[in-house]
Order: sequence, then structure tokens, then C-alpha cells
Amino acid sequence: MKKNLITLCFVLIFTGCMPREAVDPLPSWGEGQTKEAIIQFVTEVTTEGGTGFVPAPERIAVFDNDGTLWAEQPMYVQLVFALDRVKALAPEHPEWKDEQPFKAVLEGDMETLLAGGEHALLNLVMATHAGTTQKEFAQIVKDWLATARHPKTGRPYTEMVYQPMLELLAYLRANGFKTYIVSGGGIEFMRPWTEAVYGIPPEQVVGSSIKTKFEMRGSEPVLVRLPELNFLDDKDEKPVAINQHIGRRPIAAFGNSDGDLQMLQWVAAGDGPRFALYVHHTDGNREWAYDRDSSIGRLAKGLEAAAANGWTVVDMKEDWRVIFPDN
Amino acid sequence: MKKNLITLCFVLIFTGCMPREAVDPLPSWGEGQTKEAIIQFVTEVTTEGGTGFVPAPERIAVFDNDGTLWAEQPMYVQLVFALDRVKALAPEHPEWKDEQPFKAVLEGDMETLLAGGEHALLNLVMATHAGTTQKEFAQIVKDWLATARHPKTGRPYTEMVYQPMLELLAYLRANGFKTYIVSGGGIEFMRPWTEAVYGIPPEQVVGSSIKTKFEMRGSEPVLVRLPELNFLDDKDEKPVAINQHIGRRPIAAFGNSDGDLQMLQWVAAGDGPRFALYVHHTDGNREWAYDRDSSIGRLAKGLEAAAANGWTVVDMKEDWRVIFPDN
Repeated sequence: MKKNLITLCFVLIFTGCMPREAVDPLPSWGEGQTKEAIIQFVTEVTTEGGTGFVPAPERIAVFDNDGTLWAEQPMYVQLVFALDRVKALAPEHPEWKDEQPFKAVLEGDMETLLAGGEHALLNLVMATHAGTTQKEFAQIVKDWLATARHPKTGRPYTEMVYQPMLELLAYLRANGFKTYIVSGGGIEFMRPWTEAVYGIPPEQVVGSSIKTKFEMRGSEPVLVRLPELNFLDDKDEKPVAINQHIGRRPIAAFGNSDGDLQMLQWVAAGDGPRFALYVHHTDGNREWAYDRDSSIGRLAKGLEAAAANGWTVVDMKEDWRVIFPDN
Repeated sequence: MKKNLITLCFVLIFTGCMPREAVDPLPSWGEGQTKEAIIQFVTEVTTEGGTGFVPAPERIAVFDNDGTLWAEQPMYVQLVFALDRVKALAPEHPEWKDEQPFKAVLEGDMETLLAGGEHALLNLVMATHAGTTQKEFAQIVKDWLATARHPKTGRPYTEMVYQPMLELLAYLRANGFKTYIVSGGGIEFMRPWTEAVYGIPPEQVVGSSIKTKFEMRGSEPVLVRLPELNFLDDKDEKPVAINQHIGRRPIAAFGNSDGDLQMLQWVAAGDGPRFALYVHHTDGNREWAYDRDSSIGRLAKGLEAAAANGWTVVDMKEDWRVIFPDN
């Protein structure tokens, strides 16, 4: 009997139906419950004939970006970009010297800026993200990312991505999943680089947006970016955006903050096998440690929901052998 | 020399690098300029090493739906659906007997209904498409399509699709294209059936929409459809929707009315090889003949733009051997 099994293995191996060696698809994930839960879910939904089998077209996984795929401390990357844009555009806007929130930015007065709350930040984003064509804006983002560096690590922001999550994205795609970003960040701020960095093409990026307007400039059609909010992709709006863009309910969702709670609820409540995971930032040495009391990436209700529903929680300090690529 | 070529052909054929016989991928298209233009474009963008080669991820083709993929006469299918919904919902709405546009619908008074213009029709759509969850609405659409029949042909509406366009969709996909619908029709009205009928999955359907709201019903999260317009995917808004959903400019666009003009302009103006095609309804016997003077699917500016820019125009009567499947 054993001999037959060995023979079968050889046949499978040499006909290419089985890998010659079992390569660990998630080498940066430490052995333990978290990694096991991921592998068990993927195995379940890809096992043909199994009770949990999910056909490939329905294997859709959604990922938050800030704090889930790349670092969001000490400040959202897109906010750093907006501040830099204020400085770059200031010569064309002499009035900003006396006008909030621009005055605060130009004077480096973060306290006053943040005191203005979400409204001030939204104004800042409008003023700095609008007024160009869609094509021009994509180039501005690319140019900025090429030179901007993280204040703590000195790395390009596109290297402040989590190595274990890169492996997870690749592992899911190797198993027939379509991977999507569903982020509160700007859709046009992400699309210029997500394909190169995460392997996620523009059409699989969902995010917040400002309105755009089609216009003919002579014989050239352009899309002009307007200083008007179109969609804020956070909290309750994440399931709305998922439905609008994807049109079917994903079977796996990955987030790190209370802003992702409704997305995880929406995904977890579907029929058949479901996977919901929170990245919990617990590593103050290699990254940052924050949850309930953080203004960026607050995670309070989410931890309660995870405990109540048996969702998977990544303890970054314990579960991740490596945080960023090549370090 | 000739002998070498023959030998080469045999080698290619038997190693599977060449089809054993040249199967016509577009059998319902008559031989002529239109079919040649399509095949030439597809050959150009898929020929590796050629000057017009386009990598597969950028091979995106967008299709209007009403009048391009399925028939829109004598009335948009979705409008028929809305009228039927008014009748089905009337018992719950006794006030509709005295309230326009519902009164007109219940009395079969199309003249009064259409006299109310776009505003009346939009009100009708809101009232009949909202108030359910997203999941319930998908089921209502499926149930309706299962029994509704076209008033002229007696066919299910999903068999009022154009056979040559089905072949075109399949031909493009066989050549690495991602095919999208970009329609003025309701996104949630199309998604329940486009995968089965066109091979276009929900995430590749773009359309008009009403707002939806995330809500917890007990422990069950639902998306509730609201009687409020979210996005009207027509004319200027089609390139906006393409950018919002797809995030890169398609290389091929297919439409049939002036509502598709900006989409064709947007697609045609990109770099590299481009393909823009108008379906011109010229066959009053097998389908309908209409263009400049039709209130449904008016095609006037589009014909001028096609002539001025050298876009391809399908003459349905001449170019299509077959209109609908199996007839």
C-alpha cells in the first residue's frame, strides 16, 4: 500500500502535477495559528470536490492599503504628499500665506493644521489634488514617490510595504484569487504604482476620489480633476464601493483599523468559507505599536469584532519574521 | 525555398504552434472592410515584436450595451422592466392611481409618460429600482428576465443579443483582451446576467447607478438601494466612469449612439493602435433601421465623427450575416 503511494507520488511529481519540493509560500510568516489559518482557508476554497470549494472567478480578496499593505505612521503617506504639494504650489498661490490650512502647512505648524480636523485636511487634499488632468496627476504622483523618503527610515515609501503581505498577495493570486485594494486613500494616488509594487493592476484599485470632468481641449479629450469630493471610501462606504466596483461579495478581507470593520463584516457574512483578518500593529521596535488610542489607524471596535467573530488577528511582533522587504 | 516553407508549416502545425485549420473567429460577419479592419487591429496589437504590439494587461475593450450588444427597440429593455415593476408594485402603492408618472403607466398611456421627459423616466426608475437590498434586486431582475418576452419577436430579452457581437467579444478575449461593458443602463440591472450571456463578469460591468447604503439588520449586513441617483453613465460621463472603474485607457471602444461619442473619442485619442467602431442600425427587416431621427439610440454626431476620424462603422444590413443567435 505504502509502495503504491510512493509510486503515485513519483508519477505525480514527474508529470508535473505536484511540486518537486514543498516551497513555503509565506516564508516571512512565523509558524503558528495565523499562518495556519491562512493556508487552511486557501486550501479549503481551492480543493476541488471539497465542501468549501469556491470557483476561481469568485475568489476575490480585498485589502485595505494604509496600515495593511504599507506603513501609515507617523502620518498617512498621502498627507505627506499633500503637504509637499502645498509647498510646491505655494509660489502660484501667494494668498496661501494668510489662508488656513495652507498657512499652517507653510509654517510647518502641524498642531494648527490638525486642529482644523477632517474638514481642513479635506480642503488641503482638494486644493492639492485638483486642477490638473488625470494624466498629469499620475505623473506628479510618480515623480513625488521617486524622490520622497520616509522621515524615520529614509526609505522610499514604496519600500515601506509589508513583506509578509506581499507574499500573501502572491500566494492568493497563485491560487486563483483576484486581489483588490479597497482603501480610504485616493484611487488616483494609488493606481500609478500599485501594479509595480503589489502586482495589483489599476482596475483592481478602489479608493476615495474627487470628481473629474471630461473636456475637449482642441481635438484632445482630457479628464480634468475638480476640487469636489466624489466618494470617501471609508467605514460604511467600503462595502458600498466593493459592490459598485466589483459587483460580487469577496470571500476574504484584510484590514487594520476600525475603518475596515464594515468591509470585514460584509465579507464575513457571505455564504460558504470566509476569511477576515486584522493586522494588529504590535511591534514598536521594528514598526509602530498602536491600536485603541491612535488617531491614525485606530483599532478598537475591530478588535472586539475579531474576538467575537473568531476573525484572524496578526500580531505583527510575533507573527511576522520580517516587516519590510530586505531588512 | 517553397519546400522549406511547407516543412516549416508542418512543424508548426504538429508542434501545436499553428492552428491545424484556420477557423473563422467571426463567422457571422460578412467578408469585407469591416471584418478586415477588426482582424487587422487585433493582429497588430497581438503581434509580438511588431510596432503596434500592446501587452495583454493593456488590451482593454469597452462596449456600450443597449443597441450595441443587444436590441434597444422599440423601447430600452430596462424601461420595460420599470413599467412591469410599476404594475407589480401597484397594489402596495394605491396612491399611484392618481400620481404621475405612475398613473400613465398603469393606464398604458405611453404618450403622457414620454411627455414627462427624462425627469419622469428617472422618477420611474428610482421608484421601481430602490427600496430593496442589492441581493433582492438581483433576484428580481433574474426572475423578470426568465419570463419577460420581447413584444415583436417573442424571445427572451437575453436572446435579443447580437450574434456577431458575441463572436467579437469571444474573439477579443481569445486574444488576451479584457472586455468591459460601459452602459447608460443600470449597473445592477446588467450584472445578474452579463456573465452568462456575454461572458462578462460583474466586475467588468460599468453603468448608471442609484445610491446604496450599508446597514446592519441584526447581525446581517445589507446594502439597501436608495431612490437617489448616484451616477448617470452617458455621454461625457462615460470616459469619467471608465477612468473611475478601469483606471487605464482602453484601446478599443464599441458603441451605437451619440451617447457613446465621448467614450469613442477618449479611447481613440490614446497612444498606439486604437480601434473605434459604431454599430449602425440599417436593417429594417431583420432588426430596426434608425439613426439621426430616433429618440432611442440617436446617431447623428457620431456618424460625422466616424467619417471625420476614419472610425469603423458597421452597416448591419450588409456586414452581419446573422443578427440574433440561431435565426
